Amino acid sequence: NETKPGKAQVLYDFTAEPGNNELTVKEGETITITNQHIGGGWIEAQNSRGEVGLVPEDYIEVRDVGNAAPPDLSFFDAFAPTSAPPQNQASNGNDPWSVWNTDATGGSSNNWASKPEGTQTGKSAAADPWSSAAQGHPQAYQGPGAEDDEWDDEWDDVKSSGGYAESESGESGAMQRGGAHGSSMKISLNKFPGFSKSGPELYLLCKQLVKGKDKLPIYMGEVGPVWSYPETQLDCVVADPKKGSKMYGLKSYIEYQITPSTTNRPVNHRYKHFDWLYERLLDKFGSAIPIPSLPDKQVTGRFEEEFIKMRMERLQGWMTRMCRHPVVSNSDVFQLFLTYKDEKDWKTGKRKAEKDETVGVMIFSTIEPEAPDLDPIEVEQKCEQFSRFTRAMDDGVKEILTVGQEHWKRCTGPLPKEYQRIGKAFQNLSSVFNSSGYQGESTLTDAMTAAGKTYEEIAQMVAEQPKKDLHFLMETNNEYKGLLGCFPDTIGVHKAAIEKVKEGDKLVATSKISPQEKVTMAKRVSIMSYALQAEMNHFHSNRIYDYNRVMQLYLEEQVKFYETIAAKLRQAHSQFTTM
Amino acid sequence: NETKPGKAQVLYDFTAEPGNNELTVKEGETITITNQHIGGGWIEAQNSRGEVGLVPEDYIEVRDVGNAAPPDLSFFDAFAPTSAPPQNQASNGNDPWSVWNTDATGGSSNNWASKPEGTQTGKSAAADPWSSAAQGHPQAYQGPGAEDDEWDDEWDDVKSSGGYAESESGESGAMQRGGAHGSSMKISLNKFPGFSKSGPELYLLCKQLVKGKDKLPIYMGEVGPVWSYPETQLDCVVADPKKGSKMYGLKSYIEYQITPSTTNRPVNHRYKHFDWLYERLLDKFGSAIPIPSLPDKQVTGRFEEEFIKMRMERLQGWMTRMCRHPVVSNSDVFQLFLTYKDEKDWKTGKRKAEKDETVGVMIFSTIEPEAPDLDPIEVEQKCEQFSRFTRAMDDGVKEILTVGQEHWKRCTGPLPKEYQRIGKAFQNLSSVFNSSGYQGESTLTDAMTAAGKTYEEIAQMVAEQPKKDLHFLMETNNEYKGLLGCFPDTIGVHKAAIEKVKEGDKLVATSKISPQEKVTMAKRVSIMSYALQAEMNHFHSNRIYDYNRVMQLYLEEQVKFYETIAAKLRQAHSQFTTM
Repeated sequence: NETKPGKAQVLYDFTAEPGNNELTVKEGETITITNQHIGGGWIEAQNSRGEVGLVPEDYIEVRDVGNAAPPDLSFFDAFAPTSAPPQNQASNGNDPWSVWNTDATGGSSNNWASKPEGTQTGKSAAADPWSSAAQGHPQAYQGPGAEDDEWDDEWDDVKSSGGYAESESGESGAMQRGGAHGSSMKISLNKFPGFSKSGPELYLLCKQLVKGKDKLPIYMGEVGPVWSYPETQLDCVVADPKKGSKMYGLKSYIEYQITPSTTNRPVNHRYKHFDWLYERLLDKFGSAIPIPSLPDKQVTGRFEEEFIKMRMERLQGWMTRMCRHPVVSNSDVFQLFLTYKDEKDWKTGKRKAEKDETVGVMIFSTIEPEAPDLDPIEVEQKCEQFSRFTRAMDDGVKEILTVGQEHWKRCTGPLPKEYQRIGKAFQNLSSVFNSSGYQGESTLTDAMTAAGKTYEEIAQMVAEQPKKDLHFLMETNNEYKGLLGCFPDTIGVHKAAIEKVKEGDKLVATSKISPQEKVTMAKRVSIMSYALQAEMNHFHSNRIYDYNRVMQLYLEEQVKFYETIAAKLRQAHSQFTTM
Repeated sequence: NETKPGKAQVLYDFTAEPGNNELTVKEGETITITNQHIGGGWIEAQNSRGEVGLVPEDYIEVRDVGNAAPPDLSFFDAFAPTSAPPQNQASNGNDPWSVWNTDATGGSSNNWASKPEGTQTGKSAAADPWSSAAQGHPQAYQGPGAEDDEWDDEWDDVKSSGGYAESESGESGAMQRGGAHGSSMKISLNKFPGFSKSGPELYLLCKQLVKGKDKLPIYMGEVGPVWSYPETQLDCVVADPKKGSKMYGLKSYIEYQITPSTTNRPVNHRYKHFDWLYERLLDKFGSAIPIPSLPDKQVTGRFEEEFIKMRMERLQGWMTRMCRHPVVSNSDVFQLFLTYKDEKDWKTGKRKAEKDETVGVMIFSTIEPEAPDLDPIEVEQKCEQFSRFTRAMDDGVKEILTVGQEHWKRCTGPLPKEYQRIGKAFQNLSSVFNSSGYQGESTLTDAMTAAGKTYEEIAQMVAEQPKKDLHFLMETNNEYKGLLGCFPDTIGVHKAAIEKVKEGDKLVATSKISPQEKVTMAKRVSIMSYALQAEMNHFHSNRIYDYNRVMQLYLEEQVKFYETIAAKLRQAHSQFTTM
């Protein structure tokens, strides 16, 4: 895939991450390639204003291609709408909070509108949270060998999820992972049920179930089906972000230290490792368990420090949520991430995880509910109930985010300015009074000046308060927005399976399946239902914990805020003479 | 001045006062006179939409005048700019507070810009707080006998101050009162000093000073020259507004009950009586004592009740300020207003007051400072100091009014809406949670609903708070804005006198005055300075009292406000479970 140096045309908007030697380019812009041997998916280029920086290789189209056929861009057309910027570009460069209102979690808001059944065109795949194309850069330039397991061959800004070789647009326009792992697939395929290899039928009709240690039991608890919870809940701390660089300083990256509560021994990971973990968890558990997206890669902070702090905070939130999940936290790949001993250990584990075949709907084959099979009616009712609930909660959460963002703007913008002006007005009048030449004025003027200064202090308090309370309310709701954005697909897999079971008699009659297979399907959809119920119960229990905690924190800080203002004003009041 | 019924053209915009059977008309509109014998300066007319109501006679020009010469409208041109609405029409019919930002106190804000010396055209007289034309309706149709002393011949909306007969535009465009009281004049004439009868020379050079009981002594107090204060300060209560009507119900009016602290016996007065008192005080004391304008006549409240309450509150404020002034409160006319025994008593006193010749600059002839004559340099320095101070305070007060009005808008508009939306968002999410079907949810949902309701309560508190604190801060500053608007003229009279004394030698040399008159002038300007200083000391002492009181009240209410919010949120917080 070598390209000669020369002119290139930009295919997609790319926003440089500050401090990373990157170059911001716009779709349609012509740039000059100054170094094509940077590696890691990057080239160095110069724009028409003479600015030089790194640009992702697959964001540009080289014009003077002599030794290679022009890339087939029809692939891009299907997955990355050229008019819409790639997902990971923040819409507002000035405000790290602005992501709350954008559909940063993979355009999940669209998902509620589109039914999981029915035909979807390839174009709409960009709104699919499961579609990698919607979340990362198009990967067509990366052949199967383009990314191997080299420790050093890493980059922060282009997804490292094992290259999509021989990519093809299927009938549905969905993307199928090719190459070494034939059985792994994007579960977005489950949106298009039919008697293909890609639907829940893969599980419903498969011959052999997984045996042994990987079994995931489900018990009947007080609230209904529950996962098996460990005695001690896993936890970890993400901290100490350190800047490193490679390629002779051309590229820099941030490395985080993650310390699990089990070993208390820190391991280092870069964002791309988190991303790799996310892809593995999504592949393995995504059909049964909502795996929320990682925090946006390119949330541009006002300052780099603020950006790093924000990303770390959100990575911590993501890790905490994964640690809390009994199935996820106990998985080999998650344990590897948290407790690998050395580079060799990591590499071995990484290769093993990528070869895991119990992915997609096959995860259900490992689930063993210790309870009698469920009635299909009940299965469907439960499913409908969860669907309604998650949909309603998604609306509720988005309402809080919208209202909260407006409140944030007011509290950091016009409101403190007004308090400041009130403070200034009192102080100005006080200094006029001071110039009266009249005796015995000082008690009043001192008190008025103090009152004015108090309102200036209040102005500052008002402006700083959202960081102390609203921030956490927003972050929690933002996390839930991401989580809820995963449910339409999880529930979609379930609904597709229910539909298939409903067709059971017809399928037997037309000899598509055997009567025995029909019985198996019903049994397996019951297993899927137990999994969904266990997961919903896990979600509810976490939700109650999270909202109880965040509402308490919010109100606690609000009480402190208003009490401090009252105390300050009381003090200001006491300086006036009583008459 | 009889006019035949028929068509008439509207000369000025007139806005009907609600509930008064009036008709709103626009300049240039043609109306049909349906009854010209209403009396009291009103006619009944019908507009093109068929609406019938009362319109001030002098706002219209009757077309078919047969028995009278067309009125000379050049007079109007000079005093009532046709493009600007009369002073007493509120600019914003929806908001009684909007007057804070309009120059409702007689366009006083313009006064600071115009130097008291120099020529002013008649056109600008509308911006002169001393010019009656700027405050009321043009009175050209009212001959000297047009208003007599009849108890019943009253109306609320047209000024009743003794008609201006034979009105003339002087060289300066100022208005001179003619008729029976040749010596009385509008002190706006003092703005145009020169050796005419109209400047401070009237006092500086007059032969005979007032004798006897009307003397106003000035003593040397701790703070410098002070008026003679009574042992007990007069006070009064304005209350119990009652609606009355006359002209067979065609016109209605409001009568207020005023109870002075001295007699504790209530007297009744309509707005027009207050206005009459204001005119008398202005005539008599205006050169030495700032007499603030009455509250706007036609501040249109959202509801009639609100309007009446507001006007009463402001009349109370005005009366309190007048009661507090030792010179004003002790005057015959003020005492008459507060303590007249019956209709006859009132009429007699009214006639006497209108015949008072010690008005305008002649008030200084009654002042007797018990202190040695002042050095002219000191006189001028004091005057400059007061001028600077009142000007600076005027700026400071207006800044508070501007900032306060913005704050008022925010507190009653967008801010409570936002708190309400936050409250709704919490409650909505809570009701979604309630629908989860998960056990043990109620503690959280109850607490979240309570928190949501708390924010709705806070929204209401925020919206209602300005009436409890900001209102009084605004009212006090608005009063001071009115008061300060009187100073440019009061100080202007003083400066004109100083200039005249400075010219003393030249005037003697050119035989315009005698050497003895020069000595008298210097002595009398010293008396004027004592009066100004006594008045400034009165102003300062009241200012310190007023601002100390209003700042305390404001802060006290603000403390209560924030403490109540904190308590409500603390209560909401306590409903969440501690973990």
